[in-house]
Amino acid sequence: MPTPSSDQIAELLAFTDELADAARAVILPLFRANIAAENKLRSGFDPVTEADKGAERAIRALIEKRYPRHGILGEEYGLKPPQDGFTWVLDPVDGTRQFIAGLPLWGTLIGLTYEGATLIGAIDQAYIGERFRGWPGGADFKRDGGARMPIKTRACVSLREAILSTTDHNIFTGAEAGGFEHLRATAKLTRFGGDCYAYAMVAMGNMDLVAESGLAPWDVAALIPVIEGAGGLVSDWRGDAIGGGDWFVTPSGRTQILAVGDARVRDEALVSLKRAAN
Amino acid sequence: MPTPSSDQIAELLAFTDELADAARAVILPLFRANIAAENKLRSGFDPVTEADKGAERAIRALIEKRYPRHGILGEEYGLKPPQDGFTWVLDPVDGTRQFIAGLPLWGTLIGLTYEGATLIGAIDQAYIGERFRGWPGGADFKRDGGARMPIKTRACVSLREAILSTTDHNIFTGAEAGGFEHLRATAKLTRFGGDCYAYAMVAMGNMDLVAESGLAPWDVAALIPVIEGAGGLVSDWRGDAIGGGDWFVTPSGRTQILAVGDARVRDEALVSLKRAAN
Repeated sequence: MPTPSSDQIAELLAFTDELADAARAVILPLFRANIAAENKLRSGFDPVTEADKGAERAIRALIEKRYPRHGILGEEYGLKPPQDGFTWVLDPVDGTRQFIAGLPLWGTLIGLTYEGATLIGAIDQAYIGERFRGWPGGADFKRDGGARMPIKTRACVSLREAILSTTDHNIFTGAEAGGFEHLRATAKLTRFGGDCYAYAMVAMGNMDLVAESGLAPWDVAALIPVIEGAGGLVSDWRGDAIGGGDWFVTPSGRTQILAVGDARVRDEALVSLKRAAN
Repeated sequence: MPTPSSDQIAELLAFTDELADAARAVILPLFRANIAAENKLRSGFDPVTEADKGAERAIRALIEKRYPRHGILGEEYGLKPPQDGFTWVLDPVDGTRQFIAGLPLWGTLIGLTYEGATLIGAIDQAYIGERFRGWPGGADFKRDGGARMPIKTRACVSLREAILSTTDHNIFTGAEAGGFEHLRATAKLTRFGGDCYAYAMVAMGNMDLVAESGLAPWDVAALIPVIEGAGGLVSDWRGDAIGGGDWFVTPSGRTQILAVGDARVRDEALVSLKRAAN
């Protein structure tokens, strides 16, 4: 199949906005409401909220109506295989723990892959009213009531000058924790608890890198086009591309991710992370 | 001097809003701008931004004009002793690390003490447009464009059911880290990186407790009236009141704080924290 044209990408990007708007309508009334959280996983605490499920249903309905041949992979409702190369990869509420704690740095993640490679991504923070989008060659930011503005990662000459983020240091295995601790001790500043919002900050040039582990396709598909469209780089902890082949449909293992704004920071970070790479 | 009347408290609360508005006007244009951060402390990374300094100057000017006999204690510009029992205790940008990382969970803290005891507090998040206020017997929340609404802490029967927060697990000494780790392992969920915003979430009934250490008067003076006004409790790690006497003017040591929404959670948390209490 031919590579999507720029007209097609523009159309898909506008549709991504429609999907994010639909998710907002479901999610926002449930934020800071007393909602029941189910305990989904056997180990750890990963609540599924009504927000997550309801928003994924709303997004799926829109995709199935507009692009019935597109595939859909969502955290809550699994895979519908693609018939034409396109697959939407969805996490309606990334950062569920933040959501249930009332903290507004969760986000709605909407990614679109084409033949196994990421194409378009959106990170939407509904409560603050911020949306970050990325596509081949560009990325932008818009806050409700404000103008749409292009975003770019910033230059950072070395890890010692860098602002680093990860969601929670407790997500790491022993070897991973060692690698991350080396980064933390070297970086100028480290923040915890960002979830997808930290990647948006890298894309916007406020932070320099994010390192995480244990991620699923729906955690990363939307992030990659935003970071890359803003001039940054995303890889696993070996420095290889994430995804490729069928990874976004049938991932294996425990995906490690490194997102940076400047290649010089990536090269330094990989020295530590490679030793703990899967 | 007589205890402030409810009319006087209402007047001071309205003035607190004026101060928070003035701080916003200085701080907001600097958020996510490329601002120079100075390295203030000998150990660790604690940048002072133009936002912090400019907002404190703006707040001080308003207080000196309106209440020239009131004392002022600010993180940036030190102490002006009170002549009539009232002292404003200010941290214009609490969560400076979040601020420079582009994360919007920093806050402007404006506290008012009367004869050494906390009286009024405000936590203002200028970018999101949220303000939390507390006074003897009450607390409220308002988001720009929304209605003012009373807030209350929530019931929580035990630490195992609780959502816990701290700013950064790296703030703790060894013994403190041991005490906190016990809390973290017992609590249902732990979030990092909240700074003052986590206390607002306890006051609002989204979280159940915050435990931190190494705090200065300007870090806590505004928080106590918000938590207590919403029905919660604030103490040190022995369970004793924070402040008292001249503490808000001449603090000593490394203040440890525990803020809870429900006394049952405090009692359990203190079992762990007392062993690391100063």
